[in-house]
Amino acid sequence: MNHALDSGIPKRMRPDAPIGVFDSGVGGLTVVRQLMSALPDENIVYFGDTARVPYGTKSRETVRAYAADDTAFLLSHHPKLIVIACSTVSSVALDVVEELATGTPVIGTLKPSARLAAEHSISKRIGVIGTSATVASNAYQLEINAIDESAHVFSKACPLFVPLAEEGFAYHEATRLIAREYLSELASEQIDTLVLGCTHYPILKKIIGEVMNEIAGEPVRIIDAAEAVASDVAAVLREKRLLNDSGQTGVRQFFVSDVPQKFRAVAELFLGMELGGVSQVRL
Amino acid sequence: MNHALDSGIPKRMRPDAPIGVFDSGVGGLTVVRQLMSALPDENIVYFGDTARVPYGTKSRETVRAYAADDTAFLLSHHPKLIVIACSTVSSVALDVVEELATGTPVIGTLKPSARLAAEHSISKRIGVIGTSATVASNAYQLEINAIDESAHVFSKACPLFVPLAEEGFAYHEATRLIAREYLSELASEQIDTLVLGCTHYPILKKIIGEVMNEIAGEPVRIIDAAEAVASDVAAVLREKRLLNDSGQTGVRQFFVSDVPQKFRAVAELFLGMELGGVSQVRL
Repeated sequence: MNHALDSGIPKRMRPDAPIGVFDSGVGGLTVVRQLMSALPDENIVYFGDTARVPYGTKSRETVRAYAADDTAFLLSHHPKLIVIACSTVSSVALDVVEELATGTPVIGTLKPSARLAAEHSISKRIGVIGTSATVASNAYQLEINAIDESAHVFSKACPLFVPLAEEGFAYHEATRLIAREYLSELASEQIDTLVLGCTHYPILKKIIGEVMNEIAGEPVRIIDAAEAVASDVAAVLREKRLLNDSGQTGVRQFFVSDVPQKFRAVAELFLGMELGGVSQVRL
Repeated sequence: MNHALDSGIPKRMRPDAPIGVFDSGVGGLTVVRQLMSALPDENIVYFGDTARVPYGTKSRETVRAYAADDTAFLLSHHPKLIVIACSTVSSVALDVVEELATGTPVIGTLKPSARLAAEHSISKRIGVIGTSATVASNAYQLEINAIDESAHVFSKACPLFVPLAEEGFAYHEATRLIAREYLSELASEQIDTLVLGCTHYPILKKIIGEVMNEIAGEPVRIIDAAEAVASDVAAVLREKRLLNDSGQTGVRQFFVSDVPQKFRAVAELFLGMELGGVSQVRL
């Protein structure tokens, strides 16, 4: 028996196996963008559940059922690691994904951003914005307090930010008005750090940052999880000796559950580049 | 054989059979409201596909698949008539619903509002606002031109109106700004009539009407299909001798595909009254 032969090793334990990434729609592409920049050689399989998007306005129960479907699809591509590039799923269904993944490492958006927030906040007054499902789960507060139990966490659901990002209203005055309304409560809590607890929100980062500083009266640090997620992925792959350093740009495959046209158009806004092939799958 | 015995007649051909109504979510309740007012004795079974809402930003193919699921669910309640209380489904999947309904009459939102618009417009310049799927289908234009081929129809997709209505931003300044942006193109076409081509939009009717008049510089007639749908339902039931005139208020049952809590809360805004029981079903 020759264990060194690639063919004798399950695909998911080889460096050329893909990183599997999923989200309810296009938001997770902000994470893919960071992965491509930090780990350019990695092969990536992305799944966006565009036929059932959004997740964040739906119940925990429904999101858990959808997360199981998404994970099963990614597993059919034998990924060496799964990234949950959706804060709603990371908040309410991490255990569902981990259980199905049986040994394949799973990285969500929650822990990396909680860690960054706890590190950066000086006043220990931290704001979190996310979908209704994420905020209702209280998961960010638990995660931040697991790192620093003295931190005060203030959360606010911002359900209109996802459609505003998806519709390209990133710099629109209406987005600014809605941001003022959503963020004013948090500003009155005198937070010094604000976690973007949804992978769609980096698209609105400029307005969110400006409005936050304006109503807080002083600079508030904005935490975007995408970079932290990429750095965690690199660390885990390095530790497991699964980094792909072939020297060749990785192959990225994109799958969606609705027809690909709209995804392709919006994806360029999120990814900052043109997509190659996008395929439709039925779950 | 005694054909007069109720027990010998299929349930769907009896006056006490329910009217089946479906929508992607809560929007169709604006139609239920009119049905309850025009036909108070009728039993109603409502289904809202809240686990997969919205439909209007998704593809024709996906909406047709979902419409088939929704119709199958309603048929299990043996309705005497089916109302498609969703303009997206009425625009892209009427044939799917009719085929599955095999003889049970089907009424969508499209024909009644097209007829009203054609009747009311003097300049024969008619605007239609709806979801991206509805506008892409061109169905309103075809329907209005089938009634009056001289009419000019101008359409505009307003994808943010559904989330704004669902989140209760009916009178918010941000909604007004977004409405100005969406409606300015139509105003420049000098329309005298505007069709609300989505059952969510009556919730935003006040702002839509004000903005339309403001940028058009003169009054524009707003067409809300819900009343017209109720009047068509009454006419069809009368013709088929299926009107329920028991003298007793009808039983209304509500089913949704996500958990019922959020539906119940938003439903009161759309229905103008408290809901009784709401049950969850898995499609």
